Formats: sequence, C-alpha cells, structure tokens
Amino acid sequence: MRESILLSQIAAATAGGFPGRPDILVGPGDDCAVIDSPAGDTLLLTVDQLIEGVHYRPGRPVDEIAAAAIGRAASDIAAMGGSPRFALAAAALHKSHQQQHATDLFNAMARRAEALGCPLVGGDLAITDAPTTLTVTVIGAPHPGRGPVLRSGAMPGDLVFVTGPLGAARASGWTLVPAPRLELAAQLCDALGGDLHAMIDISDGLGIDAARIAERSSVAIELDAARIPLALGVGSWTDAVASGEDYELCFTTSAPPPKSLGCVEVGRVTIGAGCRVATPDGESVDAGAMGWDHHA
Amino acid sequence: MRESILLSQIAAATAGGFPGRPDILVGPGDDCAVIDSPAGDTLLLTVDQLIEGVHYRPGRPVDEIAAAAIGRAASDIAAMGGSPRFALAAAALHKSHQQQHATDLFNAMARRAEALGCPLVGGDLAITDAPTTLTVTVIGAPHPGRGPVLRSGAMPGDLVFVTGPLGAARASGWTLVPAPRLELAAQLCDALGGDLHAMIDISDGLGIDAARIAERSSVAIELDAARIPLALGVGSWTDAVASGEDYELCFTTSAPPPKSLGCVEVGRVTIGAGCRVATPDGESVDAGAMGWDHHA
Repeated sequence: MRESILLSQIAAATAGGFPGRPDILVGPGDDCAVIDSPAGDTLLLTVDQLIEGVHYRPGRPVDEIAAAAIGRAASDIAAMGGSPRFALAAAALHKSHQQQHATDLFNAMARRAEALGCPLVGGDLAITDAPTTLTVTVIGAPHPGRGPVLRSGAMPGDLVFVTGPLGAARASGWTLVPAPRLELAAQLCDALGGDLHAMIDISDGLGIDAARIAERSSVAIELDAARIPLALGVGSWTDAVASGEDYELCFTTSAPPPKSLGCVEVGRVTIGAGCRVATPDGESVDAGAMGWDHHA
Repeated sequence: MRESILLSQIAAATAGGFPGRPDILVGPGDDCAVIDSPAGDTLLLTVDQLIEGVHYRPGRPVDEIAAAAIGRAASDIAAMGGSPRFALAAAALHKSHQQQHATDLFNAMARRAEALGCPLVGGDLAITDAPTTLTVTVIGAPHPGRGPVLRSGAMPGDLVFVTGPLGAARASGWTLVPAPRLELAAQLCDALGGDLHAMIDISDGLGIDAARIAERSSVAIELDAARIPLALGVGSWTDAVASGEDYELCFTTSAPPPKSLGCVEVGRVTIGAGCRVATPDGESVDAGAMGWDHHA
C-alpha cells in the first residue's frame, strides 16, 4: 500500500468540492483545509501524526518528540502564511511507558504548543500495545492581509524560492528538530502580498513538494540544481532535493522577496506539468519522485 | 499507567486557565474545548481516537469502524448541545491492509462525516506495523440560543436525566454503532435553554460520567438504581451503569424536559461531592468507579 496513491484517491474524491457547503473553501489536498466559521471568520485546519518507529526512533528525548509532534502541524499553518491559534493532541501511548514519561511528554507538548502561539486546549489519550502515536490538530488564522497562501496559485513566469538551506534534518541524523518558519512566512505575506502566489512546506523533499505545487497549480516547475542551497553537512544537490523534515518553505512569487529575509531563488514556473531539475552537467531530470514517499 | 491519572494531571496543569488568552473559554477537562475565533465566533473542538484491538476487534466491517470513529467525536459535540461542522481524519493503517480496504475505509468515514453535517475537509495518513489507529477531530458550532452546555454547570436541586436506555452497545456484543444524539441535544437546548445546566455523553458508563459532572460542578449526584432504563438484553442496573459507548447523554436541569423527548429521570443533584447510587435494597454505593477506565 502506498500513501501517495491513497492520498490521490482521497483528493480526487473531493475534487468536485462540497456542494451546499460554501463555508468549505479548501478541502483535502493542500497543507491545511480552509473554512469559514458560522460568523464568516476564515480558519486553517490541519492534522499530523508522529509515530514511534516511523517518524522517530524509540528512546528519543521527550522534548524532541514533543517539538516534532507540534512542529509538523504548525509547519502546515506556516505553509499557508498563517498563525497557529489552538492545538489538540491525541496520544496513543505504549503501555510500557511509565506514568512520569507520559506526564513529561504531555507537559512538553503543552509548552511547545504554547510557545508557537497555539496552546493545547484539548486532547484524547489511549493506552495501547503499539508504538506511541501522537496526533496533533492545529487551528490557525490566515494572514490578515494576504489570506491563505495555497499550493494552487503558482503562475507561469513566477520565480521559485526556498527559505533556507536544505537537508539539515537529514545531515543531523534526524536529531535536529527545526522550528516551523511561522515568522518568516508572515514576513513574506507582509512584503509580497498578492505577489506571493503559492507556498508549501518541504516535508518530504523539495522535489516531491515542488511537484505538488506544480500539480495543484497546473503548471511546470524547473529547478536549477546549482542554485539549491545545501545545509552544513549535505554533500550534494540530490541529497538536498530529496530531504524533508526541515520545515523550510518553497514558494512561487511574481516579485522577488526582500533580500533581508534570506530566501534563495532555485527555479521558475513555466507552462506545462511536473517538476524537473537542471543538473550541473546540463541534463534535465524528473524531480517529482525525489523525496520521501512513505510506504510499506 | 492509568488514563484517569494522566487525564487528571493534564486537567490540573491547565486548571488556572490560559493567561493572556481570553479566546480560550474552556480548555481540557470537558467534552470539547470552547474557543473564540479571531472575529469572536464561538467554536467547539474535540478529538477522539479509535484503535484496533482497543476499541474494536480486528475484522470489523469498514462501515462500522467508520461510524464509530466519526461518531465518538461527534458525540462530544452533542454533549455540549452543538452541531458538528467540519472534520479531519488522521489514519495510521497497518501495512497489511490492501489499498482497496484503505480506500473503502476513507470513503466510509467521508460518507459518515458528511451525514452528520461535518464533511472531512482534511487528514493525514501513515502506514505502520501497528494496529490501525483512526484519530478524528471535529469542529462544531454551539447551539445558537443556549451556547455550549458544559459539565461544570450542575446545581444542587437539579434533576438528572438520561436520554435513553443504557447498555445497548454492550448487550449487542459491541456490534451496535449508535448514532450520536445530535438532534436530541439540540431539542433539549431549544426546550430548556438556560434551565439545561450540565451535560455529558456517556462514553465510559453512567457512573463514571455522572461523577465527572459532579466533580467539574463541585456538587454531588445521587442516582436511583430503580429508575435507570435498561436497554434490551441488559440484565441489571449494575450492567447499565457500567456500560458506555451508547452515545446516550446524561444531563442536569432545573426544569423537566418535554415528555415527547423520551428522556428518563434517574437522580438528582445535591450539595456535596461524588456520585452514588441508591440500590433497590436500600444501600448507597459509590458509582464513581462504575464504568470503563481504560488502563493497561
């Protein structure tokens, strides 16, 4: 079973939207759902799972597990340019854990969530025989001026940027838990406004994730391998393109962002489909499969 | 490790509320969190997990699994008198499942969520070595007239009611997946308004759940065993009091509800603490431990 196939099926099943529900602005297939509350307040909704043995090694320190669990969901809010406001945490904990470990984990998640602006307002708890699974829901508010930045807004002629060097999480042996780029995403919305056309967080790798923008926007993206910024310890552009979990953002824009924000231009949007990389030796290779497609 | 201890710790950690966050009206410890959106629209937030081998037997039909996964979270919204509006589903599926099973499960969850008024607007998917875990978040709107009905509003002198016979799920051998009492909860809010003081859904058993109202309201609840309505196939009041998963509601009110709603008076609220049952042979026993405290 492959996640990508199932996710495609789910997105296809709701591609027709939600008839009779004009309050559902964006359904499955973007970083967050976008909905209107009954009084017409636009909100961002996202949920992410962090599973022992799949997303982290058993024995990882509690603070790192908590930061990763909260950070993954908060990064989806950053990917839309929004601010996290509230979080819910559901935990299925292996029965072998001591009470103190469970308490420490919840306290660490609560601290991390509060630090990102989205206090844990509720949750659910179960004791199981299985590896620990943490599921975090975050409710966010879009940028007040720009509104939600979707994957689907890229236009031919746009420049493609990333917010920083890629591959740091992998290069650290997955011990690094980066902070979601919430402040930077808000600064991009402030500075670029309507020129900021599309954005995604790089969770599975620049190749796969840029291809997701291309697909949702019905455009092509061409990356330039020589321009891709490498995190310390990353040896090649192929490693950088295929590395996720850094929480860096990839965005397309019709105007360059302020240099002070430190973003790096890595390609451009053209008419067409898919995501390709121009390699240093002059070839063009398909980047749509470069990254981590979780499967078993 | 016991869920009840950890849940108490989490509730205690946030008992002081969220300083600086007046938009968090109710945090952990009730059926839902209650929050104000940036524009001041009050919303209900809840998350629940359904785990293979803990909450259901392997091999259970997909439609029943989906109904239970969505129903548990929607029932939390009913417990506050609200209406489900949007749902998110996170699934950690065992790798042995065929693609078709996974597709069927997602489709069944989407159908069930839509039928309850809260279409699946997003989700997350992971493939694991562990038993399937389904985590459903529901965002709801409170009753427009009554507002959210909390666990904490019970007052001495209130009558205690349940919305129907208890123990049906247990008597069915856990094959029954009842519908959350969303319509009935709304009718109670319509009819009783501010006289409807406190409500909870009976997820773990009338004893444990009525004790939760008593604790959050700083009152005592006295149940009358002879009045407790038994579902078909339930042999004794002790089985009825200790059975959950029926999605029936327990509420306290200063005025009796309309007879047409079919609710049954089972006790009253007094000054004091805890929940006790007056047995048919004239004893009074502690009901606060009657029900299912999930532990390992």
